[in-house]
Amino acid sequence: MNVAVYLPDLAKTRWWCETLSALLPGWTIRSLVEIEDRDAVAYAVVWRPRTGDLARFPNLKAIVSVGAGIDHVLADAELPKDVPIIRTVGPDLTQRMREYVALHVLRHHRDMPRQLQAQAERDWHAIVVPVAPNRKVGVMGLGNLGAEAARTLAGLGFATRGWSRNPKSVEGVETFSGEAGFAPFLDGLEILVNLLPLTGETAGILDARLLGQLAPGACVINCARGPHLVDEDLLAALESGQIKQATLDVFHVEPLPADHVFWTHPAITITPHIASQIDAATGGRLIAANLELFEAGEPVPDLADAGRGY
Amino acid sequence: MNVAVYLPDLAKTRWWCETLSALLPGWTIRSLVEIEDRDAVAYAVVWRPRTGDLARFPNLKAIVSVGAGIDHVLADAELPKDVPIIRTVGPDLTQRMREYVALHVLRHHRDMPRQLQAQAERDWHAIVVPVAPNRKVGVMGLGNLGAEAARTLAGLGFATRGWSRNPKSVEGVETFSGEAGFAPFLDGLEILVNLLPLTGETAGILDARLLGQLAPGACVINCARGPHLVDEDLLAALESGQIKQATLDVFHVEPLPADHVFWTHPAITITPHIASQIDAATGGRLIAANLELFEAGEPVPDLADAGRGY
Repeated sequence: MNVAVYLPDLAKTRWWCETLSALLPGWTIRSLVEIEDRDAVAYAVVWRPRTGDLARFPNLKAIVSVGAGIDHVLADAELPKDVPIIRTVGPDLTQRMREYVALHVLRHHRDMPRQLQAQAERDWHAIVVPVAPNRKVGVMGLGNLGAEAARTLAGLGFATRGWSRNPKSVEGVETFSGEAGFAPFLDGLEILVNLLPLTGETAGILDARLLGQLAPGACVINCARGPHLVDEDLLAALESGQIKQATLDVFHVEPLPADHVFWTHPAITITPHIASQIDAATGGRLIAANLELFEAGEPVPDLADAGRGY
Repeated sequence: MNVAVYLPDLAKTRWWCETLSALLPGWTIRSLVEIEDRDAVAYAVVWRPRTGDLARFPNLKAIVSVGAGIDHVLADAELPKDVPIIRTVGPDLTQRMREYVALHVLRHHRDMPRQLQAQAERDWHAIVVPVAPNRKVGVMGLGNLGAEAARTLAGLGFATRGWSRNPKSVEGVETFSGEAGFAPFLDGLEILVNLLPLTGETAGILDARLLGQLAPGACVINCARGPHLVDEDLLAALESGQIKQATLDVFHVEPLPADHVFWTHPAITITPHIASQIDAATGGRLIAANLELFEAGEPVPDLADAGRGY
């Protein structure tokens, strides 16, 4: 079975070709750009494919996203219709996202940025904060990652809310859904975590209107996709004090350009899209397993819904 | 009933007098230094009493420590013998310690200090770390605070160990005990959290010998008492690279003197003894409830064991 691999980084593409070749003996795994016999390619394993890349393969049976999101695949205006897209999720990705969300919510909860500033000034300054059960935190998006993140925050003792498009229930979490549930979800929230999928409906959701509905001095953590955030609205809300701090893992352009104002903003913490970076070894095993399931005609639980967008 | 209150900070002493007066109508609550009729004092509520302070009250029925530790009371060389000491613990203190331990273990686990350094250099540098189940973390001391901290780390997915003087079991945690269990507990540990009580046996336990038994490049978090740590041994281990980072909440002298080398050490994070700082309102309720229990002759669960030292 022939598989085409494409990632923007050539070294990573090679690594994935080698890894998948070792895991799928009998399959032919090649870098997408080196393939000559396009008709023979049945699968593509991609991250941010270029426009038209996938349309070159007429017999594609499925596309695999090297990550939980499929927005980077759907962004291809020439994407062949009706080819199923398989996401790469799994316990490792969920575990990493739990860690990231717990770390950054706790960092804002205990005001570590200000505590580190006090250290820099040799100032023995005790910052007293509410105890977690008196701290209102919320997670937008209750898919695999969001539900686990919300459950983790509840487990740490936070007063935790969750919001999703359709009603969902998560143990220990007060859940809200749909448009009607959005304002009550946001009302008085002190720390907001975004884990929504990126779709036409959710792009730009982190805007002035939303930020203005949070508690004054709230903190925002975006570990979903850069286009969820209206950059200028965040800057204005930080300027006014409506938002105190933000942690951003994702950006409109990645890597974040060296001259971007976010890099040096005193109230913004930047991480380079690593909230739930796929561990290469684990990711390889997940992708190989999903390809084998699909090829065998077995149900693939990680199949995305292209119409829905995730 | 007459109560003498002493904390090193005069404003805090006044606050506690007012708070306890409001919570214990009918009791007489006064600042220790202002009391004239010493014979009438039945209880003392203290933090770091000065030598001889408590010996001035011949009819003391119990001493209350404003905090979980009693080492600061036992440090009084003229402490009256056989007066019971009541600790101030409770869900709020335990919750705050869980938060602190989770935050600082996650910070070291995900190497936030280096990630922030990358941001300062506008460097889009992804730091890939093992997933928590592959990270060996350990908590020394499995009392109220330590057991809850270890349980929390296990809940976050870490491979968690615990060590205590006597055998204990904590759900999801691999426990070790006594001298025989110490070396196996430390072996290969990547992040160590100290939550031991301070006693003659545990003072100086964080020394070169212990630090040398951890995994190379391990991180250390001390949120128990300053004298647990041999400062020079930590500095040497940071210098050699055996220890990569340390977070210290407690120090031999507090506040940490402005000229102490720890303040500006690039691998040391300092917090001003706030890991589980007692929330004044909650602490007041806990102390008032314990005083009422003791006065009524009811069992007080928070009674310390002065012989044992905690």
